[in-house]
Amino acid sequence: KSHQNSLQRSAFLALRSSLGPTIGRVPQMRRNFCQTVPYKQKIQEPGCLSRTVLNAYCYGSCNSFFIPANGNESLPFSSCAFCLPRRYRWQTVRLKCPDSVPTIKRKKVQIVSKCRCQTEMI
Amino acid sequence: KSHQNSLQRSAFLALRSSLGPTIGRVPQMRRNFCQTVPYKQKIQEPGCLSRTVLNAYCYGSCNSFFIPANGNESLPFSSCAFCLPRRYRWQTVRLKCPDSVPTIKRKKVQIVSKCRCQTEMI
Repeated sequence: KSHQNSLQRSAFLALRSSLGPTIGRVPQMRRNFCQTVPYKQKIQEPGCLSRTVLNAYCYGSCNSFFIPANGNESLPFSSCAFCLPRRYRWQTVRLKCPDSVPTIKRKKVQIVSKCRCQTEMI
Repeated sequence: KSHQNSLQRSAFLALRSSLGPTIGRVPQMRRNFCQTVPYKQKIQEPGCLSRTVLNAYCYGSCNSFFIPANGNESLPFSSCAFCLPRRYRWQTVRLKCPDSVPTIKRKKVQIVSKCRCQTEMI
């Protein structure tokens, strides 16, 4: 598990134990899942020949919690993680555009290689 | 399921079908879960007698996804839902503070009654 997930988990468990008696069953911490799903992305532009690149999208369910504040001078404690790209690079894709001047157009595409539950975009 | 979750699900499915061929297995949309966990919250202040109120905290795993943009002039498509209070009210708790003047202190406490996966705080 990532360091950040461990921090989030530790913070939640520590806080939960300080809350006082919970009524009923205490929920188990479930496992995050965040999938990196490869797909063939079509890069296109009007007047140009399209090209295909290998990319990936992120899909998952990440842990979040919200614990109310303890009176009006403190803040609620909340943490949200999202399934977002953890590793990516920018790739320049050159398209041939026969009827344009110049005949080459460049498009910058974000190529995602790994997704992960994280609390902010890297 | 809430209206918002249906919107998020529909947007994701529509977008995914427009992506082009996916390599490998397409992930199933998993069910969100967002629990409302009752607990006894201790309201305290130095010099005052503490009181206990019935509150709840939120804990869960909500869906999120990130689909890279299709070139440099469009934006990535992403959506993140968090387990947050859906219904809550503000309650004023009066504490007796024998050594203070005045002898009553008021604290406003957010009492959470229902949590739900949602894309923003209500």
